[in-house]
Amino acid sequence: MSTMPAVAVTESLPITNPHSLVDVRLPVPKPGQNDLLVEVRAVSVNPIDVKIRAGAGTPAEPLVLGFDGVGRVRAVGDAVEEFAIGDEVWFAGDRTRQGSYAQFTLVDQRVASLRPGTLPAGAAAALPLTAITASEALREHIGLADDDAFLMVGGAGGVGSMAIQIARTLTSGPVIATASRPETDEWCRKLGADATIDHHRPLAEQVQELGVEGFQGILSAFSAGREADFAEIMAPFGKLVVIDAMPNLDTNALKAKSLSVTAESMFTRTQFHTSDIAEQGRILARVADLVDSGKVRSTMTKRLKGINAETLREATALVESGHMIGKVVVEADAW
Amino acid sequence: MSTMPAVAVTESLPITNPHSLVDVRLPVPKPGQNDLLVEVRAVSVNPIDVKIRAGAGTPAEPLVLGFDGVGRVRAVGDAVEEFAIGDEVWFAGDRTRQGSYAQFTLVDQRVASLRPGTLPAGAAAALPLTAITASEALREHIGLADDDAFLMVGGAGGVGSMAIQIARTLTSGPVIATASRPETDEWCRKLGADATIDHHRPLAEQVQELGVEGFQGILSAFSAGREADFAEIMAPFGKLVVIDAMPNLDTNALKAKSLSVTAESMFTRTQFHTSDIAEQGRILARVADLVDSGKVRSTMTKRLKGINAETLREATALVESGHMIGKVVVEADAW
Repeated sequence: MSTMPAVAVTESLPITNPHSLVDVRLPVPKPGQNDLLVEVRAVSVNPIDVKIRAGAGTPAEPLVLGFDGVGRVRAVGDAVEEFAIGDEVWFAGDRTRQGSYAQFTLVDQRVASLRPGTLPAGAAAALPLTAITASEALREHIGLADDDAFLMVGGAGGVGSMAIQIARTLTSGPVIATASRPETDEWCRKLGADATIDHHRPLAEQVQELGVEGFQGILSAFSAGREADFAEIMAPFGKLVVIDAMPNLDTNALKAKSLSVTAESMFTRTQFHTSDIAEQGRILARVADLVDSGKVRSTMTKRLKGINAETLREATALVESGHMIGKVVVEADAW
Repeated sequence: MSTMPAVAVTESLPITNPHSLVDVRLPVPKPGQNDLLVEVRAVSVNPIDVKIRAGAGTPAEPLVLGFDGVGRVRAVGDAVEEFAIGDEVWFAGDRTRQGSYAQFTLVDQRVASLRPGTLPAGAAAALPLTAITASEALREHIGLADDDAFLMVGGAGGVGSMAIQIARTLTSGPVIATASRPETDEWCRKLGADATIDHHRPLAEQVQELGVEGFQGILSAFSAGREADFAEIMAPFGKLVVIDAMPNLDTNALKAKSLSVTAESMFTRTQFHTSDIAEQGRILARVADLVDSGKVRSTMTKRLKGINAETLREATALVESGHMIGKVVVEADAW
């Protein structure tokens, strides 16, 4: 049986510990019916990696993290019709199987698409997970359209950096982001935000100063305890989508305006094998088109070389700092 | 200035106190541009009356409660084109103005419709507020359609009794209600529920016994602390709508399935003067058609005669008991 290099969690440890992520060799996986076997060229690190590593304990088998991936199809399952060996694809994976921090990974054809042709592999690898998250939030949960007003809370993060851009393609109304530092303010405006406000201060008076009458949609990465502040700045029947958690949400704050809250997870479709699972592949294809037509740019701000435990610990430490602007990418050297 | 009899709150008191609702005489109100002046023939009592009375303190002016109303148009404002003097209308009112527990009341033409011709005034008066609430929840928030599965938590209450019937017109899938007594079980089935389960027990195992795979929508009148139980029985991307409150909702329970929660209030459109305020008139017209075509029946189970403080205290006490099946209606005698 042939083996491959991979980076694994064998024990939940702080990222400063050299054993938190370790180099291992694992068997090259065999594609199931719907699978693509992809040779990985670039990956990116997301906060979900940190969360899963923290909760992993001591897994029975080495746990390979990594959701975002860009690479070349090397083998396909019997039911694969949409892709051929040699295709270059991108994907955001599935938390029920081994991930992309390896030379080879398996991905269901229905949650992958051809990658944008106009971006290098590394720049492309920054996008898939955040693009699917932002797209599900904006198009499916919020239904952003026409001249709706949209607020991204946490505009400079991975999801925020994509959501600002995708929102800009969906509405002609105000797209506002929160940012609390000059460099994040600049970043958000560069991506298409009309203005930024500071999420360390109450939002309502800042929104009033901007002259925005009420947001039809808010996507938030900093949500706990903020329902009253959000409710004040939302339009009646507005939709709030959170990608973190509100552990003590009081729905009384939502009632006057009949507001909705959705807890978005881009893993829902793969985890529950929903009948519309292929929507994730369609989202990625649509985002690839937006990239290739110049409407969406890469959110990569940091690039490391060599997919191995050392670079992935460095990349993960950046994500854990909480101060990342955009995304950190790790590119394969030669395998 | 001509006056009229009305029933008012002058001080927040327990409903057993004869001063909790009192007979008063007030000036007959004058219609604004969009208003109908309606002579009231029947009203019904809703839980919102109880809530507003409890929070009223000692209002500066006598506060006339009452949302549901059926009656005849006696005068119209200058901008009224859809209605004429003599029309018989129904409506669920607006919490920013005086209510329907009076000989005359004002209602914005955009939140009223012609009442169903096949029901007596009293039987019709049971429906408007619950019909609008159920319709906004099922059609706008849940988007119930096709063969979706729907659960009404609290099936025998006012909203539940309407929601079961309206759900039955929207989906060919399972319509399940919760009921904890033989008489509420029977009532829910009579209105169109395929089966009932007991909301005093955890729902998940009961739903499994029914063979329902996951609810696309839940409308709940008993919601606090139940997010984990609800999440277990919902389909991915399912929508929960609550008409009571969840004061400590943990959105972590919603995340795996990307579930949504909406706090529905039928007063949102009137309170915020939304641009689609006339949707409430359209909802009522649609429900009148459903009634006249035999698809929705009245939920009136108790009828009192004479719109005065004594009958309204009696009707309100029934609502406060928490054991009402369907709705209590109060019909005008002669004024």
